[in-house]
Amino acid sequence: MGFDDSAFIRACRRQPVDTVPVWFMRQAGRALPEYRRLRADRPFMATVADPEVASEITLQPVRRYGVDAAILFSDIVVPLAAIGVGVDIVAGRGPVVDRPFRSGADLDRLRPLEPEADIPHVIDTVKLVTAELDVPLIGFCGAPFTVASYLIEGGPSRDYALTKSLMRSEPELFGRLLDRLADLSVAFLRAQVGAGASAVQLFDSWAGALSGADYRRHVMPASAKVLAGVADLGVPRIHFGVGTGELLGLMGEAGADVVGVDWRIPLDEASRRIGPDRAVQGNLDPALCLAPWPVVEAEVADILDRGQRTPGHVFNLGHGVLPDTDPEVLARVVERVHKGPA
Amino acid sequence: MGFDDSAFIRACRRQPVDTVPVWFMRQAGRALPEYRRLRADRPFMATVADPEVASEITLQPVRRYGVDAAILFSDIVVPLAAIGVGVDIVAGRGPVVDRPFRSGADLDRLRPLEPEADIPHVIDTVKLVTAELDVPLIGFCGAPFTVASYLIEGGPSRDYALTKSLMRSEPELFGRLLDRLADLSVAFLRAQVGAGASAVQLFDSWAGALSGADYRRHVMPASAKVLAGVADLGVPRIHFGVGTGELLGLMGEAGADVVGVDWRIPLDEASRRIGPDRAVQGNLDPALCLAPWPVVEAEVADILDRGQRTPGHVFNLGHGVLPDTDPEVLARVVERVHKGPA
Repeated sequence: MGFDDSAFIRACRRQPVDTVPVWFMRQAGRALPEYRRLRADRPFMATVADPEVASEITLQPVRRYGVDAAILFSDIVVPLAAIGVGVDIVAGRGPVVDRPFRSGADLDRLRPLEPEADIPHVIDTVKLVTAELDVPLIGFCGAPFTVASYLIEGGPSRDYALTKSLMRSEPELFGRLLDRLADLSVAFLRAQVGAGASAVQLFDSWAGALSGADYRRHVMPASAKVLAGVADLGVPRIHFGVGTGELLGLMGEAGADVVGVDWRIPLDEASRRIGPDRAVQGNLDPALCLAPWPVVEAEVADILDRGQRTPGHVFNLGHGVLPDTDPEVLARVVERVHKGPA
Repeated sequence: MGFDDSAFIRACRRQPVDTVPVWFMRQAGRALPEYRRLRADRPFMATVADPEVASEITLQPVRRYGVDAAILFSDIVVPLAAIGVGVDIVAGRGPVVDRPFRSGADLDRLRPLEPEADIPHVIDTVKLVTAELDVPLIGFCGAPFTVASYLIEGGPSRDYALTKSLMRSEPELFGRLLDRLADLSVAFLRAQVGAGASAVQLFDSWAGALSGADYRRHVMPASAKVLAGVADLGVPRIHFGVGTGELLGLMGEAGADVVGVDWRIPLDEASRRIGPDRAVQGNLDPALCLAPWPVVEAEVADILDRGQRTPGHVFNLGHGVLPDTDPEVLARVVERVHKGPA
């Protein structure tokens, strides 16, 4: 652990820090002109598959913003694609699955991930990135529920009707699906940490569509399996979703060291729900980054203030950077966070 | 008030009922084959403008499902269209605004609504419907924030970035916009009640995108103005939004008699947050209506059970009926609700 003394890792571990660490979900992406230039019209999956390009994209926001952590440029469906599930990232839409998951027979399409054979490009990207970085690299994966929602719906969804219907009508099959996806995520995370990542984030972006009861019964066991499956590696585990006000306690209990929070709940209130044994990450509304600077600055100051009343605070947005964000605003956010609470 | 003794009105007023009343948001819509036949390829706005057709569509779900209330077939942007703001309902997308709201100059485009001149078709539809109905008709309007989000974004949005940016950077202008939209909503609701509607629902569908602090400061005053603006009419006022776990108390305080709740929070817990002075409406997940009947029935039974522990319960979905819903399932839900808690 070369970064044990970094502000990011220390905050994740609820150790005192000199300055609050900050990074941004989707910091490597379309808000950056240098990203748009490099991507040009190269398909997303082809970009991920090219370690030179993917590592450069991963490094861009570290140089531009001075953030305290990098996050691997990849996508939560990359492991699915790597084991031969037909899935593509379609511009302006998101992940689209060729043949959606419909029945137990489809379980056989989810074979185990063999990292050296299936995702050598991801391993190479992590190695290239960490050779250059002077801040920790965060590896990540999708949580079983969120990945399953794409598999079952065939793409992004507003209501998750097929997913919830399968969850409730065939809970045993749904559980087996999530369990397989948990194995996939564990292998994906372990490969990233093995290659040099210093922390991991589990993205359960859409878990907030569920009630607490459904989350606890049908979803939490698989997410807990992922988090437990990397516990021995000793790296901080961040657990994030959107609209999770009712789920925050459970998302911590699932085995996280840090729980990511969106902007709907004040950070200190979120921390109360999560409990004293975990740090929190968040929670600037990415939409507000499109407002004039004084608005952003006041919001950052309020979040820093509330962050002082938590056991440990990693500053972040409450969801990913919006493509229309002015990179200059994010650079100023980093600067302001590093100045610390008033 | 010819329906003072109806189960629906009584439940809204927290009076004892023999059977729990039930209706469904978007019950008049694409899930019904008779609706699809009648709409055919007629544009949405043309359908609303034709009282014969709009009243028939309003009545269809009452006949088909045996629900305890009808809701006017209309849309929250109808008053905007009626005062000449170019807005259309585009199939598969939603409301689309020709010239989005950008500055104070755009306020002048929001003239007061003169119901007799601007929405005679709505008044006629309400009269036609109430002449035939033997259950109460619910009138409705959009809450100022949700209507403003369409005006500012120009259409449906995932992040409400422009709306939030305007709200925070020009709070005075944003407040004036919401205040004008409140006046529009009051006039729209009063016209519906004047023509025979027995209750009203204020749809703040997207308020759940806001933090409690933003809601209280920038949004609640205008919604409270709408609810106060119809208080003298003596009809129950329902206040609804999606993902509002952090806002439920405020949505009640805004002046509602009934607060609508989505499925993310158990109904009895929602009622605790709302307080003893208001009834609750909800909260079956519309996505679950696509699951097999035993799943739906168990969920309905649980909601009925929790509803008994509230001051008053109107059964409903937690959001609108999904177009793929089997109407037979909704008919069975009504039957099951009327059987009452176990």
